[in-house]
Amino acid sequence: MDPELIRRLSIPADTKVVLCVLDGLGGLPGPRGRTELEAADCLHLDRLAEEGMIGQTLPVGYGITPGSGPGHLGLFGYDPLEVEVGRGVLEATGIDFPLGPNDLTARGNLCTVDADGNITDRRAGRLATEITGEIAQQLSGIELPGYEALVQEVREHRFVLVLRPLDGSAALSEALTETDPQREGAPALLAEALAPDAGPAVEVVNRFASEARARIGERETANQVLLRGWSRLPDLPQLPELWKLRAAAVATYPMYRGLARLVGMDVLDAGDSLATQVATVRERWDDYDFFFVHYKPTDAAGEDGDFARKQQAIAAFDDCMPELLALDPNVVVVTGDHSTPATMAAHSWHPVPALIWGDHVRPDDTHRFGERECAHGGLGTIPAKELLPIAFAHAGRLTKFGA
Amino acid sequence: MDPELIRRLSIPADTKVVLCVLDGLGGLPGPRGRTELEAADCLHLDRLAEEGMIGQTLPVGYGITPGSGPGHLGLFGYDPLEVEVGRGVLEATGIDFPLGPNDLTARGNLCTVDADGNITDRRAGRLATEITGEIAQQLSGIELPGYEALVQEVREHRFVLVLRPLDGSAALSEALTETDPQREGAPALLAEALAPDAGPAVEVVNRFASEARARIGERETANQVLLRGWSRLPDLPQLPELWKLRAAAVATYPMYRGLARLVGMDVLDAGDSLATQVATVRERWDDYDFFFVHYKPTDAAGEDGDFARKQQAIAAFDDCMPELLALDPNVVVVTGDHSTPATMAAHSWHPVPALIWGDHVRPDDTHRFGERECAHGGLGTIPAKELLPIAFAHAGRLTKFGA
Repeated sequence: MDPELIRRLSIPADTKVVLCVLDGLGGLPGPRGRTELEAADCLHLDRLAEEGMIGQTLPVGYGITPGSGPGHLGLFGYDPLEVEVGRGVLEATGIDFPLGPNDLTARGNLCTVDADGNITDRRAGRLATEITGEIAQQLSGIELPGYEALVQEVREHRFVLVLRPLDGSAALSEALTETDPQREGAPALLAEALAPDAGPAVEVVNRFASEARARIGERETANQVLLRGWSRLPDLPQLPELWKLRAAAVATYPMYRGLARLVGMDVLDAGDSLATQVATVRERWDDYDFFFVHYKPTDAAGEDGDFARKQQAIAAFDDCMPELLALDPNVVVVTGDHSTPATMAAHSWHPVPALIWGDHVRPDDTHRFGERECAHGGLGTIPAKELLPIAFAHAGRLTKFGA
Repeated sequence: MDPELIRRLSIPADTKVVLCVLDGLGGLPGPRGRTELEAADCLHLDRLAEEGMIGQTLPVGYGITPGSGPGHLGLFGYDPLEVEVGRGVLEATGIDFPLGPNDLTARGNLCTVDADGNITDRRAGRLATEITGEIAQQLSGIELPGYEALVQEVREHRFVLVLRPLDGSAALSEALTETDPQREGAPALLAEALAPDAGPAVEVVNRFASEARARIGERETANQVLLRGWSRLPDLPQLPELWKLRAAAVATYPMYRGLARLVGMDVLDAGDSLATQVATVRERWDDYDFFFVHYKPTDAAGEDGDFARKQQAIAAFDDCMPELLALDPNVVVVTGDHSTPATMAAHSWHPVPALIWGDHVRPDDTHRFGERECAHGGLGTIPAKELLPIAFAHAGRLTKFGA
């Protein structure tokens, strides 16, 4: 649904909606011809499918394999083809870095260059995260005219660079080239402008790179930086404002907390397990109208190609459903942000099983929550971005269009 | 289908299409877990479903609850998100008021104000329609420079105001604010311009309001007017021209006759019952290629929350099918303009059951006309605006695209 239309039709209501995202939920047949979800013991989800309506979501489009960013933006009701979150911003949100609207952000690599300045290892031997942390502290001190450089380690050789304007300086443009030549044997590149107004950005970025080289050039390895994925916070209409509700994210992984923060959700302290997540939802039940519960183990097992573990992870989520349902939500949605079939050990383009249960749901002829049943469920196969509007309609949060 | 494409591909043919709109047809499970349609005794519709193809229509979009205007515009093949019919125009069409293309129209309320001009009752005690009629006659005489004021009662305190240019005056802009403060204790507002060219409209409207006050201000109640929903006839490509055919509306309620008139259908005198409607179709069978038959009792019962009555209304429509089929139509479509589940006693966002029967229909695996069967029918779940093009294709009224 178009944001302007949402703004026009959304109304407050005294109802609760819970969106459960089992990351990478969709799968492919494994042993005995059943998918991970079909093979999993899902007493409660099957009951919700029986009473409710199931179908499939298409995260981005036919044949498109989504990353976590587009996958979640779709579930939050945005068109992932229109709203792109840059790599730098995604990396920063992934480490809970509090980005501001004027920050220019990049993903950085520490690399190793030889005496001539040619790259010998683009990943600096995947050095220990702690060492990257120490180097990040050194780089954070770099002074740039009008801008502050904030550097924070991510993992191994990876870090995030944030260039923040000091009082009075303008936000830097993201329209500039990357400094990573994407191959070894070549030197790091100078950033170049991709738009007329990117001149200041080019100057600041190249100044940062040369200052960085000055500070860490004496090191044998990890003695240079490569910068990619220039981006700024997207200017997204915020979910609570669009829908006139209070929205909370209950996620254990920083990436998903960051994505939720991008659309304006309050990010709750949810501990580090499904049990603490469910407890968080219970404790904060009265404070919010909408809860986004993110569950990572399904995707992690799928990425590892571990069919049995993904199957168990789904069953473990099913076990928590009675506790969530005991809170008496009006509408519950269970789906994934994309498929991660264990047989592929990777994200895939396959549609994702989806389930809507609650007030005013028109039941269909299906009885179990699984890929094959979802393919002919009453919900049909719909763009993921339509799922939240449908859920909010069931929760009485959309008024009539036209007389 | 895009109007330009329709114009390009539509061809005349010696075929008849009947579109039966059971208003608010879609429902939700009630007693014994069946919907109104599933529970209704529909021998004939079930046979059409068996022989034909069923599916679901989405009137406006996912999660969107349509009013009657958008619901019907979709069924007539227009995109309800692109073609909006304003409140004033809809109110006027609802009383069969013959609007012209240059008329500016508003919905009016008679209200009661105190000696200080503050509203004490926005609905003037919901006075009798007859009295509103008398007041409307008084107000219709108001002289405005360059414009004629036409006022006609609707029901209780509601009336329609039409400002029509006299020879030589331009159509007035609809870009102006409403004069209804939407609360009591405040005075009626002056209209203000929302666009640079709305100056003349503001002048005429405020002049009308003050003249009205002068004429009815002596009354104890119903002594002031409130004006809302400024609108003009939408400039719609006309259905007979687009499709190269003769189209007739057979409806007993003025609102639906008005909507049909907006898209260029001939509005037939159809009596006040389904029996007279069917008789009208029979009598005029040779004069038209397309008949829109509108049936209101399903929606009325749904709005009243009367499951049994809605079920019976559907069965009553089913009873008339043999008479319609005896006319030997080439294609029959049966659907609704939206869902009105009796359990909700209101319009809803749920998709609407749809059935296509006739020449060249590819049958599907379904056997009964009901929500659950429709959810996996061969037609799929399609935007309502695509239903008429599909029906006309079956009737040989769309030629090949490309060589």
